[in-house]
Amino acid sequence: MPRYKLTIEYDGGPFVGWQRQENGRSVQQAIEEALAAFAGEAATVKGAGRTDSGVHALGQVAHVDLARDWPADTVRDAINAHLRAEPIAVLSAAAVSDDFDARFSAVKRHYLYRISQRRAPPALDRGRVWWVAVALDVEAMHDAAQALVGRHDFTTFRSSECQARSPVKTLDRLDVAREDGEVVARASARSFLHSQVRSMIGTLKKVGERKWPVTAVAEALAARDRARSGPVAPPDGLYLVGVDY
Amino acid sequence: MPRYKLTIEYDGGPFVGWQRQENGRSVQQAIEEALAAFAGEAATVKGAGRTDSGVHALGQVAHVDLARDWPADTVRDAINAHLRAEPIAVLSAAAVSDDFDARFSAVKRHYLYRISQRRAPPALDRGRVWWVAVALDVEAMHDAAQALVGRHDFTTFRSSECQARSPVKTLDRLDVAREDGEVVARASARSFLHSQVRSMIGTLKKVGERKWPVTAVAEALAARDRARSGPVAPPDGLYLVGVDY
Repeated sequence: MPRYKLTIEYDGGPFVGWQRQENGRSVQQAIEEALAAFAGEAATVKGAGRTDSGVHALGQVAHVDLARDWPADTVRDAINAHLRAEPIAVLSAAAVSDDFDARFSAVKRHYLYRISQRRAPPALDRGRVWWVAVALDVEAMHDAAQALVGRHDFTTFRSSECQARSPVKTLDRLDVAREDGEVVARASARSFLHSQVRSMIGTLKKVGERKWPVTAVAEALAARDRARSGPVAPPDGLYLVGVDY
Repeated sequence: MPRYKLTIEYDGGPFVGWQRQENGRSVQQAIEEALAAFAGEAATVKGAGRTDSGVHALGQVAHVDLARDWPADTVRDAINAHLRAEPIAVLSAAAVSDDFDARFSAVKRHYLYRISQRRAPPALDRGRVWWVAVALDVEAMHDAAQALVGRHDFTTFRSSECQARSPVKTLDRLDVAREDGEVVARASARSFLHSQVRSMIGTLKKVGERKWPVTAVAEALAARDRARSGPVAPPDGLYLVGVDY
C-alpha cells in the first residue's frame, strides 16, 4: 500500500486536540473523514505530535497508507476540498517509503509559544496567543530557560496524564525573545513529555513577572516534583511549527 | 458631556458589519452594550468607517459621549472587560474636544487587502484572507491600479446600495505588492464609496489572472458603469488599518 507523508496546518481552537477522542471532534478524525470521502476507505492518519485541545499547528506531520496509488498532489487537494468547512489544511503531501513513520522516524520537533504583551486583549489574535498584559522580563526568562536545556529528568514539567515510559528527555533549545511586541519562546527536542512546553512556559512566566527568581527554574527541575512547576500555560499560544526527519 | 475617541480592533467574521442592523449583531452594538454595562447609560458609538459584514479592523476609530468624566484608560479597560467574549478590543481611548467627530473629522482612511497565493487553503488565516491559488501578475495589477489613483467618478466601483451623494472621490494611493508570499494591496483616501475597495480589488484580480488587459481598468473607470466592474472581492481579506485626523 502506498504511504503518504502529510504536512498539516490547523487552528486547534475548535478541536479536542490532534488525537481521536470520545469527547469531541479531533483534527485526526476530520482528516480521516475527508480521506474516507475522497478515497472511499477507512484509513488511519498517524501524527508526529499529539497536540492538546486548543494547540495549533503550522507544520504537523502525519502519515497514512492508502489502497490506491494516487498522485501525491491529488491526495493533498482532495483532502483539502473535503475539509473546506474546517480550519485544517494539508500544506503538502508526498509519497514516502514504508519505513517512514511520522511519529517514530521524527528526530526533532519544533514548537513556538506566543505571549501578547499589549494592554488591550487580543481581537484578531484571540485564541492564538496567551494574553499577559504585565510587562515580562524577557532576559530573565531566557536566562532561566537555559537551565532546562540538555538531558534532564523533566518530571516537574510533566502532566500527570503523561504516558511516556521515561521522564528523561533532551531539550535542544529553549529561547525566549521579544519579537514584534510579543514574547516568543522557541523549543526544540527529539520529543517532549505531555504538557512539557506549556509547563515550562508557565514556570518561565513566573520569572518574567519577577515573582520567582531566575534560579527557581533550575531548582524546580532538580526537585523532580510536579508540584514545583508553575501553572500550565494555556494552549492558545502554542504552535507545533515543524518536525524534522 | 466628555467625548472619547476610541481606536478599535476587530475580527469582522462573526458580525453583520460595523453598523447596527436588524439582521444580526454588529460591532457597534457589541461596544454600545459593553458601555451600557460599564457606565450604565445608553450611549451611541459613532464610527469613522462603516465596514461591511466580515470586514476586519486593525484601527477603526469611533467617538462616544459619556455623562461622567472617566479617566480614558478606565473607559478602554472597562469596555474590554465587558467585551471579553467577543473578538473586539479597544486599543486606546483618549479624551477629545466636542468638535472631534470620528466620521466627519477624518482626513484619510487606510485599508489593506490580503490575497493568499498558496496552493493549500488557509487554515490559521481562514476568514482573514482571500484565497486565490492561481499565481497573480502583481506588477500588472499594480500598473492597472495606478489608473484609479486621483480624483475620479467611481460609479463603476460603487455598490448599488451606496448612499454617498456624489460618486466623485479622490484616491490617494492604491499599491499592489507581494509581501511574505501574499499579494497585498494598500488603499488610502479621504473617504471611499460603499464596496469601492472590494470592487477595485475584484477588478484588479481579473488583470492579475491575465483575463483582462492592464488597460481594461482605466476603461472600466471611464465607462462610469457598474456593470463594467469585476466581481466584488470577498470581505475576508479586507482590513480598515487606520484613520487620520
